Amino acid sequence: MRKTELLKQKILTEGKVEEGGVLRVDSFLNHRLDIEFLNEVGLYFRDKFRGLGINKILTIESSGIAIATITAQYLHVPVVFAKKNVHINLPDEVYIEDVHSFTQKKNNKLVVAKKYLNKDDKILIVDDFLAKGNALKALLSMVQKAGGTVEGIGIVIEKTYQGGGDEIRKQGYNLLSLAKIKSMENGTVQFAD
Amino acid sequence: MRKTELLKQKILTEGKVEEGGVLRVDSFLNHRLDIEFLNEVGLYFRDKFRGLGINKILTIESSGIAIATITAQYLHVPVVFAKKNVHINLPDEVYIEDVHSFTQKKNNKLVVAKKYLNKDDKILIVDDFLAKGNALKALLSMVQKAGGTVEGIGIVIEKTYQGGGDEIRKQGYNLLSLAKIKSMENGTVQFAD
Repeated sequence: MRKTELLKQKILTEGKVEEGGVLRVDSFLNHRLDIEFLNEVGLYFRDKFRGLGINKILTIESSGIAIATITAQYLHVPVVFAKKNVHINLPDEVYIEDVHSFTQKKNNKLVVAKKYLNKDDKILIVDDFLAKGNALKALLSMVQKAGGTVEGIGIVIEKTYQGGGDEIRKQGYNLLSLAKIKSMENGTVQFAD
Repeated sequence: MRKTELLKQKILTEGKVEEGGVLRVDSFLNHRLDIEFLNEVGLYFRDKFRGLGINKILTIESSGIAIATITAQYLHVPVVFAKKNVHINLPDEVYIEDVHSFTQKKNNKLVVAKKYLNKDDKILIVDDFLAKGNALKALLSMVQKAGGTVEGIGIVIEKTYQGGGDEIRKQGYNLLSLAKIKSMENGTVQFAD
């Protein structure tokens, strides 16, 4: 597939494998945003998830926002992004989930105002990375509490060896990852396909 | 102007004025993202700033990212977003600026990797809010240190009574705000125009 190949090429040429199994993709996804590339990602998700009646895209700040925004333009739906570690008092009732981030080595609180998730929602979740899937599980839990359904999950980079993706697929979710990485041993990225 | 009127209408019907002079626009700009509306903002900024040779859009996570992403699609340039309070060690050399946030009542550190700002850059800065302008001044300082030029600044909502915008205009910057709020006394939004 052209788009998945484009992404793999970008990961190989621009990604940097660091200690602790962190893949840095700052040059196009996490600090600098390559908009032409993200446009291809958005088109890919549109092609894969259209026709499912999706009425909302859910993601997590900050790295998910650009991906969600571009995908939402093609699906003509709004975006809701979960906030991390909101310090000010929120006036609205909220869903809160604790999520351990192995990359950041700390717990984050993910927060979504209840009024932005509804029982009639047919949701597409998108995010940049999927490893153990803790953040994704937190979003799934929120949608479930709201009574909505998750029609699809679109991930840019999945680290399959960390198991989160397969666990979530076994629960019956329609989870698609553009690039699947099966190993980063010795600093070398190996794709699953 | 149709787009500025659309925005003003949204602020009046969906915005909420809270204690401490905070205008909450969670329903379309800061938590839920109204993509059709943001698309109009992006087109407006494109119309106002095209032809200036802009090669990069600079913004701040998280609320600036969606605006920057959509504007960047129309101007065909990449985005760089300043990170807040990066806790992990950054392997790259960075520009760091301390910014006091009156809304959050704390200091934030804004961080941009030096390699993503260059002396040849012609930059458009976009952001959701402009009040005292501390965050914006931090971005201007970074671009200046990198030797680049700021060709334009596009703001969605400016609180003119807090003075940041006029101060920056007096320095000669091409600063444009879609909606200018001159007062929020007694919880009522009054526009400057």
